Amino acid sequence: MKIAIIGTGIVGKTIASRLVELDYEIMMGTRNVSDKLASTAKDNYGNPPFSEWFKLNSMLKLGSFAEAAAFGELVINATNGSNSVTALILAGAKNLAGKVLIDIANPLDFSNGMPPSLLPGLNNTNSLGEEIQKTFPETMVVKTLNTMWCGLMINPNLAGNGDHVNFISGNDVKAKNKVKDILKQFGWKDENIFDLGDITGARSTESMLPIWLRIIGVTKSGAFNFKIVR
Amino acid sequence: MKIAIIGTGIVGKTIASRLVELDYEIMMGTRNVSDKLASTAKDNYGNPPFSEWFKLNSMLKLGSFAEAAAFGELVINATNGSNSVTALILAGAKNLAGKVLIDIANPLDFSNGMPPSLLPGLNNTNSLGEEIQKTFPETMVVKTLNTMWCGLMINPNLAGNGDHVNFISGNDVKAKNKVKDILKQFGWKDENIFDLGDITGARSTESMLPIWLRIIGVTKSGAFNFKIVR
Repeated sequence: MKIAIIGTGIVGKTIASRLVELDYEIMMGTRNVSDKLASTAKDNYGNPPFSEWFKLNSMLKLGSFAEAAAFGELVINATNGSNSVTALILAGAKNLAGKVLIDIANPLDFSNGMPPSLLPGLNNTNSLGEEIQKTFPETMVVKTLNTMWCGLMINPNLAGNGDHVNFISGNDVKAKNKVKDILKQFGWKDENIFDLGDITGARSTESMLPIWLRIIGVTKSGAFNFKIVR
Repeated sequence: MKIAIIGTGIVGKTIASRLVELDYEIMMGTRNVSDKLASTAKDNYGNPPFSEWFKLNSMLKLGSFAEAAAFGELVINATNGSNSVTALILAGAKNLAGKVLIDIANPLDFSNGMPPSLLPGLNNTNSLGEEIQKTFPETMVVKTLNTMWCGLMINPNLAGNGDHVNFISGNDVKAKNKVKDILKQFGWKDENIFDLGDITGARSTESMLPIWLRIIGVTKSGAFNFKIVR
């Protein structure tokens, strides 16, 4: 299957590499392909520029947001949450129509310094996942994987023997089932994929970012996840 | 030790009973003692009126907010979060000064129906815990226990062999240590009491309410808690 990944940051790269391993055909989408390949800037975490990583991952295609969205039978939003709706509008409603869109992004607001808070208008009584669904009513938005470090998203066995929770929300049951199949290929056990119902569930998972960030602030490590115990 | 519990709802009653078991002297505080004892209304969960429960718990004292706060060497806020600051102002800053105040409440907003969201002005870039600390600068506010069903607060062994997390936040280390001692008497293991640092940690634990409420909405049970796995 052809999958588009919108966004070329650490989350997008991590997911892309894993999907290539799993034999998916991947095109990553960026705002401006030539700018992206010409940039020699390290990312926010001090990693080498995208172009260096891209050279080492020759199975991947790179296109504009719109080219990637047109290419993908399924689309993953791995952009910065403050930029997601804009990036997806550039990707094009018609390129997204009728497709499943996995939204991994979080509406983080870095404007008040670290740690970030959640963006005004996209928290508490709304969410990024819902906003994307409202903006693209012909797309089946599925929110998942947004409550953990990207290393765990694609390899849950890195913590607690894989025995921790990944939430999933979305209005379309078939779309969620498609996404669950991919999650299982990543290593997620069926019993650890927790279906929160419709896309308003995104509100509750995006609200986990403050505790997630606080724990990282205290422990200096993102290599953890939550498990539900009864 | 004498402990005041401000609030006579299900959380206040649950904590009160447990503290009596542990040989603490307890006074519960309510807005109007004679009204509270005269009321024959069931609570929001269909439990018998407070007066019936109070008759069965003869070790407890009941007073006004101010009488309770004056009585307690340590004070617990177990009021409805939308009402907490008002109730504590009635309890009196001078009755709270120099004391540890355990804040268990959450700033839930039921005005938009169920499930509640968080109160405007008390979420994301602020919290109820912080607001109480700002309002009563001479009181040592410690936020804890607010991320779970009250049955688990006082008996963590009811789920997962007691092996799940309770967060604690507060500016005063000695105050937190006092509270930790009580938590251990409730059955909390030291390694499961997660210190998030200063009172701004309340922001992150109060933000867990949306996922907590959503999980209850899906599973119809509050008898669960989160564990951190690495």
